[in-house]
Amino acid sequence: MSLIVMKFGGSSVGSTERMQRVARRIADYKEAGHKVVVVVSAMGDTTDDLIDKSKELNANPPAREMDMLLTTGEQISVALLSMAIHSIGHQAMSFTGWQAGFRTEAVHSKARITDIQPDRLFKALDEGNAVIVAGFQGMTEDGEITTLGRGGSDTTAVALAAAIKADVCEIYTDVDGIYSTDPRVVKCARKLNEISYDEMLELANLGAAVLHPRAVEYAKHNNVRLVVRSSFTQNEGTSVKEEAVMEQGVVVRGIAFDKNVARISILGVGDVPGVLAKVFGALASSGIDVDIIVQSGVQDGKADFAFTVSLDDKDRAIGVVESISSEVPYREVTSEDNLVKVSIVGAGMVSNPGVAAKMFEAIYNLGVSIKMVSTSEIRLSCIIAAEPVQDVVRALHTAYGLDAAEQAFVGGPQDRR
Amino acid sequence: MSLIVMKFGGSSVGSTERMQRVARRIADYKEAGHKVVVVVSAMGDTTDDLIDKSKELNANPPAREMDMLLTTGEQISVALLSMAIHSIGHQAMSFTGWQAGFRTEAVHSKARITDIQPDRLFKALDEGNAVIVAGFQGMTEDGEITTLGRGGSDTTAVALAAAIKADVCEIYTDVDGIYSTDPRVVKCARKLNEISYDEMLELANLGAAVLHPRAVEYAKHNNVRLVVRSSFTQNEGTSVKEEAVMEQGVVVRGIAFDKNVARISILGVGDVPGVLAKVFGALASSGIDVDIIVQSGVQDGKADFAFTVSLDDKDRAIGVVESISSEVPYREVTSEDNLVKVSIVGAGMVSNPGVAAKMFEAIYNLGVSIKMVSTSEIRLSCIIAAEPVQDVVRALHTAYGLDAAEQAFVGGPQDRR
Repeated sequence: MSLIVMKFGGSSVGSTERMQRVARRIADYKEAGHKVVVVVSAMGDTTDDLIDKSKELNANPPAREMDMLLTTGEQISVALLSMAIHSIGHQAMSFTGWQAGFRTEAVHSKARITDIQPDRLFKALDEGNAVIVAGFQGMTEDGEITTLGRGGSDTTAVALAAAIKADVCEIYTDVDGIYSTDPRVVKCARKLNEISYDEMLELANLGAAVLHPRAVEYAKHNNVRLVVRSSFTQNEGTSVKEEAVMEQGVVVRGIAFDKNVARISILGVGDVPGVLAKVFGALASSGIDVDIIVQSGVQDGKADFAFTVSLDDKDRAIGVVESISSEVPYREVTSEDNLVKVSIVGAGMVSNPGVAAKMFEAIYNLGVSIKMVSTSEIRLSCIIAAEPVQDVVRALHTAYGLDAAEQAFVGGPQDRR
Repeated sequence: MSLIVMKFGGSSVGSTERMQRVARRIADYKEAGHKVVVVVSAMGDTTDDLIDKSKELNANPPAREMDMLLTTGEQISVALLSMAIHSIGHQAMSFTGWQAGFRTEAVHSKARITDIQPDRLFKALDEGNAVIVAGFQGMTEDGEITTLGRGGSDTTAVALAAAIKADVCEIYTDVDGIYSTDPRVVKCARKLNEISYDEMLELANLGAAVLHPRAVEYAKHNNVRLVVRSSFTQNEGTSVKEEAVMEQGVVVRGIAFDKNVARISILGVGDVPGVLAKVFGALASSGIDVDIIVQSGVQDGKADFAFTVSLDDKDRAIGVVESISSEVPYREVTSEDNLVKVSIVGAGMVSNPGVAAKMFEAIYNLGVSIKMVSTSEIRLSCIIAAEPVQDVVRALHTAYGLDAAEQAFVGGPQDRR
C-alpha cells in the first residue's frame, strides 16, 4: 500500500467523459489498496471564461478580487470530481486550498506557500476517502484567499506530497512523459524513463512546458519523487528524482530550444567603472530578465557587450539602455531577433570534456554560425539564427545518441529498474 | 450616516449591465455617506448550470459535495460585484460566507446559522470599503462549507443586519414591493407602504414568493427593519416591521392564494382511540406537510376527516393512508385537486368580528361553495374550486377596500410617515 499524490491539469478534467476517466483511475488505485490524494486544476476553459467576465466589469481588477474569482474554478473541479468518484461506488471528499491547510504569504495572484497543515486530509484518508484538493490556491494568516500563480497546481501537488510524505507525486498531463526533445520537431525523440531534478529544471526553464520550474525546485528541495505521465494512456511516464540513471555512453539527456529570444548589443562602451553593474542594474529594476551576457575584449579603451532578453522585453530593454546613455557613454545600441537558443542538458556533461566540442561541430557542419554561448554545470546553450532550428536540433539529437532507434537497448535491464 | 444592508437576488446581477447598475446603486449610498454591506446571490442561471453539470456525473450527488459546488456561484458574484464597484472609483472587498463569519450547524444543503462573527466586515467597513458578502453559505465548526437552503440569501442578509445592528435591511428584487394581492391577477392591486412581520409571514407562507418565511421570522425575532424594493427603479418599496400602521378603516392587509392544494378525505373512520395521531403521525414521518384539517361530526360511531396537502404530495399521502388501513379502519379514501386556498391577512382582523362574515358573503355572492375553512389570529383561509379564483380574489380585494383607487387617501399624511 502506497500513499500517492495524483495531479490532473485542466485539460485532463475538461469534459464529463474526461472527468469520469480520471475518477476511474483514482478508483483503480483505491481498489489496489493505495491511499490517494488528488490535486485538480480548473476544468478546461473555466479560468479563461472567468477572466473574460471580470474584464467586462473592470479592465484592471484588484488582485485580491481576482483571487476570490479564480479560485472558484478549482473548487468546481474538486466537487465534481468527488461526485464522479462517488458515482462509481467509492468515497471521496473535496477540499479547497484553505481547507486542505495551505497557508501562504499575504500576496495576491502569486503567493508562495509558507506552511501546510494536512490534518483534515489525513482524517479523510483514514476514513477511506479519496481526498480531492483544489490546486493553485491557499489562504493567508488573516483568512484571505490567495492563488499561487502560474504552475500553481503543480506546486500544490508537490508541496502536498512533501507535507504528507507521499511515496510518489504523479503529474498527469496530455503527453506521456518528458522527451529527449520536442517530438513535434524531431520524430525520433524518445521518452525518457528517468531524469534528475536539475536536468528537469534546465529543460523546464528552457521551455519544456510540462512541469513548472517552481514545482521541480520544490520537489528537489523536499526530495519528492515525481512521475510525469499521460492521463489518457497507461504508459509508465518519466520519473524525476535526485539521481537519475544514465544509459551507458549517454551524457546528454535532452535537447531544448527556445524561440523567444532577442539579442541586444551595446557597442563602443567607454571604460567607465562599474559599467556592467549600471546597465544590468537598470534592466533588473525595470523587471527585465537578462539571460546570456557576453563581453568582447576591450579595444582602444572601448568594449562591446551583448545580452539576450525574451522577445517581448526587447523594446523595453532598448529603452532602458538609451535612458542611461549619459551615465554609460556608448557609440551605438543594436538589436537582433529571429534567434533561437538551443541547449543540450545532461548531468553527465561535467565529467565529459568532449561534449561541448561535439555541439559546436554539429552546428558548424550545418553551416550555421554560433552567435553566443552560455554554459552551466549540466547545460550548454548556443544562440543561433532561427531558421535552421529543426535541422540543428535533429543533428544534435543524433550526435548525442538520443534517437529513438537506440532505445531498443534501453528496453533491456534498464527498463526494470 | 446609516449602516445599510442591501441584498440582491440572482436576477438583479444576472448580466454585466445589471451588475453595473447594482454597483452604481451601492456607490450612490457610499457617496451619500452611508456604510454599506451587500449580500448577493449567484448570478442568473449559475446555480442551475452547476446542478446540471453535477447531474451528468452523479444522479444523486452527496450533499457535502453539492455544497462545495454551489457555493462557488455566490463567490463568483461577490468577486465580480466588487470589481464593478472598483471600476467606478469606490473601494470594495468581497467575502465568502465563512470569511464573513457565518457559522452554521453541521448539516449540508439546509444548515441553520448558529453564530455570526462580523469582525472582518467591520474592519473592511472602517477602511472605507463597500463590503460584499456571498449569500446562502456558511461554515461549520469543523471548517466544512455549508449552504442555508432555499431563501438562504434573504436569511443571510437579515441575519447579518441583526449581527451588525444595521439601521435597515433592504431586499432588492424584481418587483417594487409587497402588494395587496398578486398584481398579475388583480390589476388594481396596490403596493403596501408598510406591513407587519406577522402579516408578511402569513403572506409569504401562502405563496407570495418575494421574501422567504425563514428570513421574515429571523427579522421578527431580531427586530430587523426590512424594506422590499425593486432593483430596477428608485421606488420606495414596502417596509416590513413590528407595528405596521394600518390605514383608517382597513382591517385586511392583503389577499393571498395558493393553487398548489389537494384535499384528501377519509370517510367512515371507526372510532379507534388516537386515530388522528395515527394518521397524521404516519404522514409526518413520511415528510408530508398537512395544512388544513377538518373533522366532521361522528355518525353511528363513524367519522369523516379531510385534510389538505400540496398537490405534489397527493399520491404519496393517499399511499400513506392506505398503508395504515389495518390500524385505522375506514370505509373509503378520496381525493380532490383543482382547488385553491384563498386567504385574507391582516393584523386588524382580531378586533373586527365582522371580517369573516364579509369573506364568506363575497364568495357566496359569486355562487362559489366553500369546501374548508381555516383561521389564525390574523388570517382566514377558504378552500374553494380553482376555476373562479381570479373573480374571488378581485371580489375580496374590493370588499375589503384594498383597490388601488382608494390609494389616493393614502397619498396624504400616511405617505410621509
